[in-house]
Amino acid sequence: MTAPTWDDLRAATRELAHFDAIHALLEWDQQVMMPPAGGAARASQIGLIARLRHARLVEPALGDLLDRLAIADLPAPQAAAVANLRRDRDRAVRVPPDLVAALSEAQAHGFQAWLHAKERDDFVGFQPALARLLALKREEASAIDSARHPYDVLVEGFDPGTTLAMLRPLFDRLARGLRPLVEAAADLPGPAALPAGPFPRDAQERLHREVIAAIGFDPAAGRLDASEHPFTVGLAAGDTRITTHLYEHDLLTGLGGTLHEAGHGLYEQGLPKDQAPGTTLDAAAGLGLHESQSRFWENHIGRSRAFMRWLAPRVTRHLGVEVAPDTLYAAANPIRPSLIRIFADEVTYDLHIIARFELEVALVEGSLDVADLPAAWSDAYARLLGIRPPDDRQGCLQDVHWATGAIGYFPSYTLGNLYAASLHAGLRSALPDLDDRVATGDFAPILAWLRHAIHHRGQARTAPQLVADAVGPRDGVEDLLAHLYARHGALYGIRAPA
Amino acid sequence: MTAPTWDDLRAATRELAHFDAIHALLEWDQQVMMPPAGGAARASQIGLIARLRHARLVEPALGDLLDRLAIADLPAPQAAAVANLRRDRDRAVRVPPDLVAALSEAQAHGFQAWLHAKERDDFVGFQPALARLLALKREEASAIDSARHPYDVLVEGFDPGTTLAMLRPLFDRLARGLRPLVEAAADLPGPAALPAGPFPRDAQERLHREVIAAIGFDPAAGRLDASEHPFTVGLAAGDTRITTHLYEHDLLTGLGGTLHEAGHGLYEQGLPKDQAPGTTLDAAAGLGLHESQSRFWENHIGRSRAFMRWLAPRVTRHLGVEVAPDTLYAAANPIRPSLIRIFADEVTYDLHIIARFELEVALVEGSLDVADLPAAWSDAYARLLGIRPPDDRQGCLQDVHWATGAIGYFPSYTLGNLYAASLHAGLRSALPDLDDRVATGDFAPILAWLRHAIHHRGQARTAPQLVADAVGPRDGVEDLLAHLYARHGALYGIRAPA
Repeated sequence: MTAPTWDDLRAATRELAHFDAIHALLEWDQQVMMPPAGGAARASQIGLIARLRHARLVEPALGDLLDRLAIADLPAPQAAAVANLRRDRDRAVRVPPDLVAALSEAQAHGFQAWLHAKERDDFVGFQPALARLLALKREEASAIDSARHPYDVLVEGFDPGTTLAMLRPLFDRLARGLRPLVEAAADLPGPAALPAGPFPRDAQERLHREVIAAIGFDPAAGRLDASEHPFTVGLAAGDTRITTHLYEHDLLTGLGGTLHEAGHGLYEQGLPKDQAPGTTLDAAAGLGLHESQSRFWENHIGRSRAFMRWLAPRVTRHLGVEVAPDTLYAAANPIRPSLIRIFADEVTYDLHIIARFELEVALVEGSLDVADLPAAWSDAYARLLGIRPPDDRQGCLQDVHWATGAIGYFPSYTLGNLYAASLHAGLRSALPDLDDRVATGDFAPILAWLRHAIHHRGQARTAPQLVADAVGPRDGVEDLLAHLYARHGALYGIRAPA
Repeated sequence: MTAPTWDDLRAATRELAHFDAIHALLEWDQQVMMPPAGGAARASQIGLIARLRHARLVEPALGDLLDRLAIADLPAPQAAAVANLRRDRDRAVRVPPDLVAALSEAQAHGFQAWLHAKERDDFVGFQPALARLLALKREEASAIDSARHPYDVLVEGFDPGTTLAMLRPLFDRLARGLRPLVEAAADLPGPAALPAGPFPRDAQERLHREVIAAIGFDPAAGRLDASEHPFTVGLAAGDTRITTHLYEHDLLTGLGGTLHEAGHGLYEQGLPKDQAPGTTLDAAAGLGLHESQSRFWENHIGRSRAFMRWLAPRVTRHLGVEVAPDTLYAAANPIRPSLIRIFADEVTYDLHIIARFELEVALVEGSLDVADLPAAWSDAYARLLGIRPPDDRQGCLQDVHWATGAIGYFPSYTLGNLYAASLHAGLRSALPDLDDRVATGDFAPILAWLRHAIHHRGQARTAPQLVADAVGPRDGVEDLLAHLYARHGALYGIRAPA
């Protein structure tokens, strides 16, 4: 028996990448193209592909191959891929088929129950579905690794390399550091007014296409479409699709969403998907790092004063209105504590996440009973943001995540903001004339830096390691707070705490 | 061991339908949505799904189940489904994996060689690829059933229930019957002139959408998009997609294509896909019958005088031009022998098919050498249509079919015309006021008749049987000639032969 090689692994995992691509197409199509009556059949098609992928991953032959490669002498990235695949495969193997089926059913039911409950502002109606999901997720975590904290096991499914012990102090420090900004918000004037349109959809679309092409999104290897909820899928090499939602009377909201998704899209387009598909070296190093790419372009570049200088004449050309760059800048950077996460400003966004994090940890640990979630949610918002939701629709029923079993997912949003802030700080050292480049539309060196530092490396290291490799030992909380005080603090005359 | 039931078969074949739907989506997306750089990965994804579908079909357990059901006492449609599946499965089982792989490679290579040769008008460059494909197709036919004529075996892959012995006399009689129309064509005035536009694409699209909705295409269970080459895919229950090609300076060509595809689409929407997916009772009874549905709506309804009465005010409303119904009618019904099949008129179209049929039968039998194809093609066109192509691009290199191994496919186009003519004749007996209904846009009873006679029956019978069930013992050639002499003969004063 000859020793297995890296090429054996590439051959064995290639189909995992194909299944992922097909799954992604089925879901993209469902949200962007599929006629409404196709839904029932589509669910079965997706279920079939998910089952086939799972079956391929848990095949004993792949386990043997990985075990043998784990003791082989491989270069670091390949060794990392073997470790990643063993982790992913172990997670899949350890969850018994009955539990997989029960989870899948509870998630589908949870989604329907949530839709129904949200429409009627009926948390009590949703409670049993959520309780059932939590019980099953605890069971899943225990099946995967009963020795670790269940929340750590769940987070690993989204952000390998991240633990509760890392998150707690990060989030505590961030919440404390944001307090002066949030407390000052009450006394701030309302946001700067922008022309209210209407801006025809096709004109907006042309503007958005120019913007994403300028920052480097390759239209020959991707698409931009409209959908109810913006999202990105990287199907395969040469095929990355982003969607956006256009607002007829809002100049910036849709564009911010497009930039956000384009950031995800640039990551997907930069991953080395044709080299080792299915090995994890072709894939993003977790959701947090993925989010860092979207937040970097949406916030750090896309809401900067320099970007607004570049953007303003393009707004005029496509939308036919004159807006001063500083007006755009002020309008893009309000501080306005609010109830709905997806409409939150850059400053308060992370407080929405921290609230969810605290609550879902307590739910998983059992220290918070599902029945008490609405009150706990309200208290968390009062403490962190100074406001209380008038109903659960604007409170604990606003997000779909928990209803579909995505527990441990929320931290990735704030991880993304922390990574993005450190990457921005590192990039600024590497490109001291960053602002001038942005103001003149010279985005290529920015993308080149991200490609080299992050995109090309796939999952060769964990997200925290990749960021540290790129920018050295930095503190994400300090970087994010420094960025926000430099931007919002300066705009509104709010000083950072000592 | 309990006796197997119909429900066992439904459970065993359901995934075949899912694979077909996924395959169809991958191809639809490739032609309509996929960014150009996604092609290489897409080919692998399609290959994977095709292999998985094949593996499921040839599973011994399915063979056992079918063998046991074949001797069970099932109602007629279910017994037909068992026979269909045994036929399809036997065809798949009998072709050795090496030959499957060789064919797949030769088809991919043939397509590329054809593209290259067509661009350069270089038949000699294409010759080896075509010779290889023919050899492999003969080998495939022999592997499936060496006792039958290889062409019969190949045709069965597209049109079960059709044989060379059936086709030859049909096509001979049809060619003879068309001769007076073709011969008279030389002396006819040029086609009636229509306004040349330009007609904006979105206005045309609105017109086309109104037309297909009027004839019954359900937009909540389907889509209409643009693509280079129009086509239809019925993905699954509730999801049928048609595409069309819009011509900015042509009022009728694009609309004819849309009606054609909508005819296919109505068949797909009418198949009972949610009842017994994967059993063949959910699928069309061959390509010829499928084509009959497109030709019925495109030609029999869509080029009729009554339809033009309904259409004319809609053309005015959407495209802003006034055209008299009779002008539309004359323009839609020229007789103009020409070199390119896809632009042929209704009268001469079948002669293009008959030429290809004669040539491909000779190629399969070996009585025509591949090297002699261009000359034989030219002779066939001279004999049937009175014209010779000036080069192979306008001759034997014009179609993609042979280059992708689709040998035995062409007859389905003319079978479609024959079936459509008989269905039209039968429908006219059932609905004597057919023309009045069409002229007033009352298409519902037409679709209802087709649904009942054809669509709902899936593959419960072969195509010739389904047509005979619907209209009784009719002669398709007589029906088609009667229709053409009634329409084009009357328009141009050409009398049917005695």
